[in-house]
Amino acid sequence: MAFNSIILRLELNHTLVTFGQVASAVSDAGGDIVSIDVIRPGSDNSVRDITVQVADEREKLVVDSLRAMPGIHIINVSDRTFLAHLGGKISIQPSMPIRNRDDLSRVYTPGVARVSMAIHENIDKAYSLTIKRNTVAVVTDGTAVLGLGDIGPHAAAPVMEGKAMLFKQLAEVDAFPICLDTKDTEEIIRTIKAISPIFGGINLEDISSPRCFEIEDRLAGELDIPIFHDDQHGTAIVVVAGLINALKVTGKSMENIRVVVNGIGAAGVSICKMLLASGVQHLTPVDREGAIIRGGTYTHPMWQWLASQPQLEDKPGSLHEVIAGADVFIGVSRGNVLGAEDVQLMAPDRIVFAMANPEPEIDPEVALPLVNVFATGRSDYPNQINNVLVFPGLFRGVLDCRAKVINEQIKLAAAHAIAAVVSSSELNEQYIIPSIFNEKVVKNVRRAVIEAAMRTGVARRIPPDMRSLD
Amino acid sequence: MAFNSIILRLELNHTLVTFGQVASAVSDAGGDIVSIDVIRPGSDNSVRDITVQVADEREKLVVDSLRAMPGIHIINVSDRTFLAHLGGKISIQPSMPIRNRDDLSRVYTPGVARVSMAIHENIDKAYSLTIKRNTVAVVTDGTAVLGLGDIGPHAAAPVMEGKAMLFKQLAEVDAFPICLDTKDTEEIIRTIKAISPIFGGINLEDISSPRCFEIEDRLAGELDIPIFHDDQHGTAIVVVAGLINALKVTGKSMENIRVVVNGIGAAGVSICKMLLASGVQHLTPVDREGAIIRGGTYTHPMWQWLASQPQLEDKPGSLHEVIAGADVFIGVSRGNVLGAEDVQLMAPDRIVFAMANPEPEIDPEVALPLVNVFATGRSDYPNQINNVLVFPGLFRGVLDCRAKVINEQIKLAAAHAIAAVVSSSELNEQYIIPSIFNEKVVKNVRRAVIEAAMRTGVARRIPPDMRSLD
Repeated sequence: MAFNSIILRLELNHTLVTFGQVASAVSDAGGDIVSIDVIRPGSDNSVRDITVQVADEREKLVVDSLRAMPGIHIINVSDRTFLAHLGGKISIQPSMPIRNRDDLSRVYTPGVARVSMAIHENIDKAYSLTIKRNTVAVVTDGTAVLGLGDIGPHAAAPVMEGKAMLFKQLAEVDAFPICLDTKDTEEIIRTIKAISPIFGGINLEDISSPRCFEIEDRLAGELDIPIFHDDQHGTAIVVVAGLINALKVTGKSMENIRVVVNGIGAAGVSICKMLLASGVQHLTPVDREGAIIRGGTYTHPMWQWLASQPQLEDKPGSLHEVIAGADVFIGVSRGNVLGAEDVQLMAPDRIVFAMANPEPEIDPEVALPLVNVFATGRSDYPNQINNVLVFPGLFRGVLDCRAKVINEQIKLAAAHAIAAVVSSSELNEQYIIPSIFNEKVVKNVRRAVIEAAMRTGVARRIPPDMRSLD
Repeated sequence: MAFNSIILRLELNHTLVTFGQVASAVSDAGGDIVSIDVIRPGSDNSVRDITVQVADEREKLVVDSLRAMPGIHIINVSDRTFLAHLGGKISIQPSMPIRNRDDLSRVYTPGVARVSMAIHENIDKAYSLTIKRNTVAVVTDGTAVLGLGDIGPHAAAPVMEGKAMLFKQLAEVDAFPICLDTKDTEEIIRTIKAISPIFGGINLEDISSPRCFEIEDRLAGELDIPIFHDDQHGTAIVVVAGLINALKVTGKSMENIRVVVNGIGAAGVSICKMLLASGVQHLTPVDREGAIIRGGTYTHPMWQWLASQPQLEDKPGSLHEVIAGADVFIGVSRGNVLGAEDVQLMAPDRIVFAMANPEPEIDPEVALPLVNVFATGRSDYPNQINNVLVFPGLFRGVLDCRAKVINEQIKLAAAHAIAAVVSSSELNEQYIIPSIFNEKVVKNVRRAVIEAAMRTGVARRIPPDMRSLD
């Protein structure tokens, strides 16, 4: 159920209606008044803004019930979400004011020519003398936006802008949205390569599977800046972080558990890869056609890769068949594909991550009594698996050490860093994952990422605060 | 002569040297101390930062002469221009802080989904609900940067960032630098089209001729946002603005003058087109091969277009031959191609705009006694022809009225608006062009641009302050 805030500007005729009656009508229609601002006071007649929290589908009911009452004139209905987007959500800020000709001649012609020539002579100086050092492109083609699908590059922009806000606020990273008016794999690769000089990293976002795999792989091979498809790896990293802590809670280990991953798209593939890299020995990836099995033949190249992994089981079957005896269920598929009867077939001390949006794979109310640790992608239940925990600190780290690539070790280090934010005394079934507002998250992830980049030889710079490690 | 500021951090042993001796040594080497900051005071020994203004070629002399003196230890030499560029010159600023889950759910998931769907249903809403409304790409391929030539996209970035600073400070336009790692015309066109959804306009910059013509024309035809190659039209608009006022000073008119334009590259072509649109009847474009004449045959398509214009003269000749009797010389070519003897052959009340950088077509000291109105691209002489006068107000205008294109009428309107900032009582030989810091410039240009866009039917929105005109 998605809640929204609306602001109603009401003119009240006090001889016909009291504010108490207004409040009752709002409550009866399913709304909750969270704030009141008196715009124009008066004894006979007043104007007030009331902010009402209400489920999306009841919004019209609230407005209609007020409209029907005598003595109320609705001047305006504003939506706080739309208001927050008016004019866009990011802007460009100059580093200093240009007060006079002297300033101008430093930051623009003629002075800038010496700076340009210094970069021309040594291209590495782009990192110190331009925004490259701190700037990431958030690139989408708008084909797999949130749960909305292929809504196009213009409609994807608000999501990319929101991401840019989070990058800045949480990790001081400057991120700029690039929304591509093409769905062609080669064209996307070419375009990103062409615009890469100003960027220190590329965050791919909401690009549909399977194109996302080739786009990321090719760019990682052809550019010398880090490339990261957040839908794949951001999700996988935070899943593994959650699983590390869930295993502590249940007293199990990566080596002994049997894991079923349901939904082998962009995120599912990356989750499977990270689980294997984390030591999981018994893995069953499942998609609509059933389990992907060891030795099977698949047209999807990533499925074929999975089928060649020794940790995969060779028993075919539907999700309902293979779930029996599993310790862990990880869903990145669609709502309500898992029933209570399925969960009851799992091994004791069950771990279920049901991350489909907006409807999880299993109704939380059904799952909670049956499992030991339960997590979703939602903020209205404990243990929210949210990739906002990953990308800010990860990019802060790779930018600070100028990592050439983001390798598996860097991703695993990020997962462990997120898990470690929850101390052993805090850890419990309801708290395996820290809040995105926990300030330790970005700090820990950054540090772990830089250490892993240095250890694996992909760092091109040691940040000053890490020099003692060298 | 290019001046620069350096900051020297000096440790002085007062038993061996006085500050007076330091100051004398700086002066003797050709430097000028413009500020002093005492970093660590002391009677025997002190540390000070001295800021020295010095010609580029004398910088080493200043440092070396201080280094040779007893009692002076140079701790550090910093260059204010490079200091101003450290870390880049622009950053991304979120429109509001994300303080809690409630904020997050408005600007990011799940709330943002409703905003994305609103744009998906009506793409025009991208203008109100994303940064498109106010955001311009400053796009270069780094092939014709300032007077430096093909220095590449990384080295071009500081110029683009400087331009983004000016866009923001002067006109509140958000501009983001896109530095392309390709020189291929088709690839550049494809790339700009692919990244266009987030932008409300495209400012092409420092792309070499003749590719710049095709790139601009094609994009203008294939995209529905305004495209503007600043090197062509920014320069042309401010030249025409200067000429409008220079003609007032000399009592001549567009219809009666003979104009020689030297250097028929990107800027030269656009200047010729605008002069023709302004009513000039006698035009002689000149390049290295001599005058482009009416009825001539040329491989360069823009030269061929010029050769078909009835206002062109049909007499061939070198610059030195065709300059005789001209009222106006406009140079966008290279240093020192015009001699005193050439200028003396011009008609009385001569107007000379010598805009080659860094060396004008004629030494200002030679030209000034011989001409009535003299202008350059430099800030150290009166009448600086600077396209910073154009692009901020022009884009403010086209963004505010959502102009589909920037047509000739819009450009001419901008030129007249710049000229009109200098009132008839202020106007004289030394003051035909306003300062870029004059706040009337952006305001006037914006208004004129919107009026012209509305008049010519290319405006898609009437800004609130212009509604009475409708």
